[in-house]
Amino acid sequence: MTKSRFPAISAFCACLLIAANFQLAAQKGIDAAITEVLPATLKKHREFVSLPNVASDSDGIMKNYEWVKKELEQQKFTVKMLESSTLPLMLAERTVSKKAKTILFYLHIDGQPVNAANWDQEDPFTPVLKQLDSQGNWSTIDWKNLDGAIDPEWRIFGRAAADDKAPIMMMLTAVELLDKAKIKLGVNIKIIFDPQEEAGSEAFLSTLDQYKADYAADYMIIMDGPAHPTNQPTLTFGCRGNATCSITTYGAKLPQHSGHYGNYVPNPIFTLSHLLASMKDENGRVLVDGYYDGIEMTPTVTALLSQVPDDNEDIRKGLVIHEAEKVGNNYQEALQYPSLNVRHIDTSWKGPGLKTIIPEQVTAYIDVRLVAETDGGEQLEKIRKHIEKQGFLVLDRAPTDEERLTNQKIATFKTNGFVNAFRTDMEAPIGQKLRAAIAKEFGTPPVSIRTMGGTVPIIPAINTLGIPAIIVPMVNMDNNQHNPNENIRIGNISQGIKMCMAILTMEL
Amino acid sequence: MTKSRFPAISAFCACLLIAANFQLAAQKGIDAAITEVLPATLKKHREFVSLPNVASDSDGIMKNYEWVKKELEQQKFTVKMLESSTLPLMLAERTVSKKAKTILFYLHIDGQPVNAANWDQEDPFTPVLKQLDSQGNWSTIDWKNLDGAIDPEWRIFGRAAADDKAPIMMMLTAVELLDKAKIKLGVNIKIIFDPQEEAGSEAFLSTLDQYKADYAADYMIIMDGPAHPTNQPTLTFGCRGNATCSITTYGAKLPQHSGHYGNYVPNPIFTLSHLLASMKDENGRVLVDGYYDGIEMTPTVTALLSQVPDDNEDIRKGLVIHEAEKVGNNYQEALQYPSLNVRHIDTSWKGPGLKTIIPEQVTAYIDVRLVAETDGGEQLEKIRKHIEKQGFLVLDRAPTDEERLTNQKIATFKTNGFVNAFRTDMEAPIGQKLRAAIAKEFGTPPVSIRTMGGTVPIIPAINTLGIPAIIVPMVNMDNNQHNPNENIRIGNISQGIKMCMAILTMEL
Repeated sequence: MTKSRFPAISAFCACLLIAANFQLAAQKGIDAAITEVLPATLKKHREFVSLPNVASDSDGIMKNYEWVKKELEQQKFTVKMLESSTLPLMLAERTVSKKAKTILFYLHIDGQPVNAANWDQEDPFTPVLKQLDSQGNWSTIDWKNLDGAIDPEWRIFGRAAADDKAPIMMMLTAVELLDKAKIKLGVNIKIIFDPQEEAGSEAFLSTLDQYKADYAADYMIIMDGPAHPTNQPTLTFGCRGNATCSITTYGAKLPQHSGHYGNYVPNPIFTLSHLLASMKDENGRVLVDGYYDGIEMTPTVTALLSQVPDDNEDIRKGLVIHEAEKVGNNYQEALQYPSLNVRHIDTSWKGPGLKTIIPEQVTAYIDVRLVAETDGGEQLEKIRKHIEKQGFLVLDRAPTDEERLTNQKIATFKTNGFVNAFRTDMEAPIGQKLRAAIAKEFGTPPVSIRTMGGTVPIIPAINTLGIPAIIVPMVNMDNNQHNPNENIRIGNISQGIKMCMAILTMEL
Repeated sequence: MTKSRFPAISAFCACLLIAANFQLAAQKGIDAAITEVLPATLKKHREFVSLPNVASDSDGIMKNYEWVKKELEQQKFTVKMLESSTLPLMLAERTVSKKAKTILFYLHIDGQPVNAANWDQEDPFTPVLKQLDSQGNWSTIDWKNLDGAIDPEWRIFGRAAADDKAPIMMMLTAVELLDKAKIKLGVNIKIIFDPQEEAGSEAFLSTLDQYKADYAADYMIIMDGPAHPTNQPTLTFGCRGNATCSITTYGAKLPQHSGHYGNYVPNPIFTLSHLLASMKDENGRVLVDGYYDGIEMTPTVTALLSQVPDDNEDIRKGLVIHEAEKVGNNYQEALQYPSLNVRHIDTSWKGPGLKTIIPEQVTAYIDVRLVAETDGGEQLEKIRKHIEKQGFLVLDRAPTDEERLTNQKIATFKTNGFVNAFRTDMEAPIGQKLRAAIAKEFGTPPVSIRTMGGTVPIIPAINTLGIPAIIVPMVNMDNNQHNPNENIRIGNISQGIKMCMAILTMEL
């Protein structure tokens, strides 16, 4: 197993194959094996995507479980349900040996809610096969096309077609192919199916203690989300957390007529503007004391980050901006720092018939993306202290009349909880082995993301279970995740099957 | 006529009265005469307020005209209608002599629209007589109470009861009393009735040229709005104008996920905050170059302003603020300067389900109250230049992609027109004579406001007609103008009749 972890199906070892009654034509190799199985996989995927799977529809979720359970049992998994106070979770296990390491794969069975009216097809749960026509539009083609040569650029449109049913199909097909080739798994597999990932993961997050033994594993691999925009195999070693808060500043107790009181009643919007301007410089760097404490861009880190094949100029043009903020020297570096984002400003008086008033208060809604070095609670406290430092009386509620009469600058600072970041060391054994396994199979190392910008809902589970986790995102970036016209590129299904085979056969 | 302009009804001149077959009991004086006529005036007012007068209801407006016309003709006015492209205006004239000066009185016949559901009475156009009960609530009392002793604190509730039907009744009653007393008017009277003051005054403003001769006068007196909060007789010599504009700043072309792009995509809210913070210091003083040019608080001006009996501490407590902005040294001084007010901030993404995005743009809606020294167009241009000075590319439209890609700071600056301020010199003859006339009648000089903070809709008419104008506001400040439960304090009706008599008998 020096050159390939699929020697049985490499052209160099055709002789072994015959003896093994192997179903795949040895000459074709792994890609051919996938090509051969692909029509059947896509037909199953069609059947699977036809099952409505919104978390609020418990009957629908149960039908999805039944469908997957049947497939899993055919692949020799033992399957059990883990009851929770809401929907049950489903755990599938397949053990190679007690000596082998165990990977807990996290997949979710539910999909985002749909509004069929916004889709270009009749029913988001009646999947449609499409190809890009000469006008650059996605037009429907007959499912019978799957009986001929399959174009990897074709896509299947339907809710959950990508998020997260595509990875489930990749996993099932990978196991099937390995079994057919009688290739032994390198790891014990546990797969946990979350019925509520799109709705807060309550069942999973509330049972971390209860089913600790069931969830126990050496490593955790989360199969969710899109690959790097280049669509190369991607590994993500961490993601930012999120903390939210709001800041409200005050004028008079009631909105006042801007004619009668303009130049007299302090305008809370200007007060807030001065405060926000004190929090971030014009280059986007946060000015709050200690905000970036503990974060070091060492040569090792910058070297790792520079291996991500981002085209920063492409990103800039895609966003249609002149220059990015100067927090990091490039996109990947920017994500290694906590952010400070105002997502909305709310003044009390709004809507049609906007009157010329001095608003009585204004609120900035803020989110802070956290990194491994910054605890959410501490980061929020730094912001609170910064507001105090600007001379504000800082409250966690609205001011009383007495407080208004005796303090010129008052801010209400409300925090709304946080989810800390997670980051698994890219140089730890699991990272090295995963990268090596994928590099061997694909000829080039995977794109390795140190920290992705967004926040996955199950971070608390990762941090609570304390299992080193890596995200393996496999669907196309432009899959319209969470939106109408969600889709999966067929080429990504093939690539994902291959990635799963690489992961399942590596020895840890 | 040295001591009083109503010698016939003063106790000192009782002898003259008898010869004049004067209807008022000489001994009672002017106040008694008003007390005597008051029940009849209030009954007429009740009848008048019962006529719905929303500008959009042209039949209603015409019925109001008919009612007033009948009253005016009984008081020997000649009345004519001035047709316009919308509703007609009504002009009433009564000429004393060609030598006498002519005052054009401006009153409006229409009232604000109503939503009966928000009123404490069944129908805003069925007026109700109320008194304050021991619990501090306004409770209805029988109209028959007007047949006994009338408490000046009683109020009549109904749409337009104050704004602007009370001044119309005061004027009619004043003329009636003077005629009964056979006291000659000191001025020629023109009264223009605006049918659309609450709806933009289109009929009046669009016919300023067409009926120039009809509107011609030596002075203009606008009888609208509430008196000084002390409820003393009030003269207002000017009011601020208003200019509105908006400033929009930009991030990426579309809203971006704050996880994926926080620290990378510039947030337009911070850009706007820096800009707004550069426009006004923390004391509320505008930092835009030349914003206060031409305004001088000379000793004469500050002396005039200091005569207004404001209780700045009361104002502060009423507003529930710690300190006023430091543009002027007190409330009246603050109103001598142009203001800069942000009345609303609008981010694109709002409402329930607020997402963690970096907004693609944010708009500040601004109003600038203008004073006599500051032209609206010039003031807006100063703001535009200030934005440019902060390094922005300033556009009057949304930026193109090319502009976004090549400019870091872009602002769209939109102006929405303006109405300049007006101010009549308080020391000009009309001002001196009015103050003297009222001082004589009431024993103390009236509260003389150099500039009121708000903007009256007919300023363009004042500036176009070029007639020195003074506002004589006579209703109680707490009349719920434009709101449900509009009301007039009966004491203000008596006081207003007396003021009208003083004005009509002064010799200019």
